[in-house]
Order: sequence, then structure tokens, then C-alpha cells
Amino acid sequence: MSTYRLHGFGRSGNTFKVAMFLAAAGLDWEPVFVSVAAGDTRDPAWRAKYNPMGEIPVLETGGRMLTQSGAILMDLAENTGHFAAATPADRAEVLRWILWDNHKFTNYYSMHRLQKAFAPQPPPPEVMTWLKGHAALNLGLLEQHLAGRTWVVGDKPTIADLSLVGYMYYPAAETGFDIKADYPNIAAWSQRVAALPGWKHPYEMLPGGVPTPLR
Amino acid sequence: MSTYRLHGFGRSGNTFKVAMFLAAAGLDWEPVFVSVAAGDTRDPAWRAKYNPMGEIPVLETGGRMLTQSGAILMDLAENTGHFAAATPADRAEVLRWILWDNHKFTNYYSMHRLQKAFAPQPPPPEVMTWLKGHAALNLGLLEQHLAGRTWVVGDKPTIADLSLVGYMYYPAAETGFDIKADYPNIAAWSQRVAALPGWKHPYEMLPGGVPTPLR
Repeated sequence: MSTYRLHGFGRSGNTFKVAMFLAAAGLDWEPVFVSVAAGDTRDPAWRAKYNPMGEIPVLETGGRMLTQSGAILMDLAENTGHFAAATPADRAEVLRWILWDNHKFTNYYSMHRLQKAFAPQPPPPEVMTWLKGHAALNLGLLEQHLAGRTWVVGDKPTIADLSLVGYMYYPAAETGFDIKADYPNIAAWSQRVAALPGWKHPYEMLPGGVPTPLR
Repeated sequence: MSTYRLHGFGRSGNTFKVAMFLAAAGLDWEPVFVSVAAGDTRDPAWRAKYNPMGEIPVLETGGRMLTQSGAILMDLAENTGHFAAATPADRAEVLRWILWDNHKFTNYYSMHRLQKAFAPQPPPPEVMTWLKGHAALNLGLLEQHLAGRTWVVGDKPTIADLSLVGYMYYPAAETGFDIKADYPNIAAWSQRVAALPGWKHPYEMLPGGVPTPLR
């Protein structure tokens, strides 16, 4: 069994955030296919064994079940040294950006994508407009932050980059955002992350195949 | 000048999360009144000096400006030892719950309250229903987790408790949730947190007065 078993699938950008770390750090890992779409995470047996919150990713290592991509990335950076901040001041910035990602950015951006492309019954258009508006507001803030910067914090890639970039490689048909056309700083930075060792597109790096958007 | 200056106001449960820590740990701190309602955080000069993300709380200490309540709490726990987890395994759980709070709980719960009680122009009812539904789903998960537990992680209060409890003391007229009536485990746990040293209601502990809900 690999040292790290990453439960999730390619459609989950949060799973992909952790996969990028494991691959680029050259750790001994394997993906374990779990499909939210097929209801795997609603199964009480799965929840009891892996995560009562019913979320992926779950990183299984040494008998521990780590969840919440931001917490997993912090744990991995501290325990392996990879993608950790260079200084205490940078570390505070890294924590801040990971919290912001979860609190203000990924939640809107990924929820909008999920409902737009993959929800069997999408919410009313008013909700979609709301989600997209908040995602756009925060995407704009990230675009502005990246002006003149190579990485989100300091002068090397950290877990803040891996967290924030997690949903940037999915196609505009899924997300409703054309990153290449409208967010040049984010697009260039995404390509820098994609040049890290072992990087593959989420639909190649993780199991589950390439989904077909429902609309 | 105090060692810690906490920029925010009583209406912000995220500011209150940090205030509870500073008070209970007996640290040298003072609140600095910033009103989101009055537009203070939209002022470019304020953003340049305190936080380009335009968010409160900001914790000013030793020339540093820390933001995102979850990141601030992690920083304070590590640097002071107060409300830190007792073991490495507990620490991973604490991180998980703080990330979950920001990613899945507080964002819905506080956004619903903000729009319901304080937004000059509230979003369409479909959006309110959406926000409330997600807040309720995650409130239920927290209620279930607290069954038979005294604290969120381990057998002592940690920053996970201070983070998750941040919005629990606001009245049902603001939040749309009657915690005492409908979530007995959360209500009892909230009272345990309220017994910590220096605890006061957010509208007493922080500046800005008691707001009148707009509807």
C-alpha cells in the first residue's frame, strides 16, 4: 500500500490540490476513486470509515484520515517541508491565502461550477447569478494580487499556490469563466504551477474520466 | 499602544472569534472600531494600510497585519500556546474543523445573516433560501458532532471552538436560526465557551453598538 492514499476523483479540484502536492513532492501516493456524483460520499459506511463530514478529498496515511484540502496541505507542508513558506512572515501570508481561498474563493467558484455543469437539478437562475458574481469578485482580487508576482507568497511556490489554483484548469464550458481570455495574470501563474514536476491535468492525474457537463 | 490591536466591530462574528481568544488568554489587546456597514473597508486608503482583501478582522501586532480569522487563530495558538491542541493528532483535527468552518459553515451562516438583517438591498428570495439551506445542513452536522462531546476536539477548548462558535450568540431575529430551541448540543456548548475568562457578548466586547436589523 502506498504511504499516501488520496480518496477522490478528477472532477474535484479540492482533491486535485492535494494530488499536485503529492506528485510534485515526489511522494509515494496513489489515488483511490470516490465519486461524489455517484453518491459514494453519502453512504453511511463510507462516512463512518473515512469522513463523517461526507467530503472528499480524504488523505489516508499511517492510519490517519485527513480531510479538508487546506488542512491537508498545511499538514503535508509541515511534515515533509515541501511547498512550505520560506519565513515565519511568509507562513502567516500562506495561511491567510489558504483560509481566504476556502472562505471566499473556491467555495463560490467551485459551487457555481458544480451547479452549472453537474447538478441534476440546478438551483434557480438567481442563485447562479449570485454565485457567479461572488466568484468573479474574488477572482478579480486574485488577478490583481498576481500582477507583478510570480507566486502568491514570496518567491517560490507554496501550498497557497496549490490551493488557489485547484480549479483553474477546468474548461470554461464547466466553470463559466474563460481564464485565458479574461484573467491573464491567473492564466500565466496557472501555467507556472503546471510546470511543476509530475503535473498532469486533473482529469488525467485522478480517476473518474472526463465528465460531460449536463448543460 | 496595546500589543494586539483588533480592527473590527461587534457585528462581525469573525472579529469576535479573535476577540474571545485575546480576552480568554488574558493578552494585552484593544479593539479598533472599523465599520463594514459604513464602508470603512471599501476605502482604498484603509485597504492599502490594513488589508487589500478589504476584510475584517485585522489583527495588528508588532507591525504585522494578520487577516482571516482562521489564520489569525492558528497564529495566536502557535505563538502563545493558548487554545492550542493537546496532541499532533488533535491539531490535525483542529485545522480540519477551522477549515470546515470557513469553507462550509460560517460563510453560509454569516452571509445569510448579513443579507437577511443588514443588507440595504437583499438578494432575491431564491438566494436567501439557498444560503439558509446550506447553513442549516452544516449546522446540523455540527450539532451531531457535539452529541456527547464537551469541546469540538479533545477534552479542552481550542481555537476550533472559538472559530465555530463565533456567530452563535447573535439573536434569532438577525440570523433566522433559533439555536436554543433547535440545536441543544450547540446551545450547551456555546454556554461552555461563554464561561471562559473575559467572555462578553460580541455587542459588548467589541465597538459599534447593537445594530437594528433592517428587516
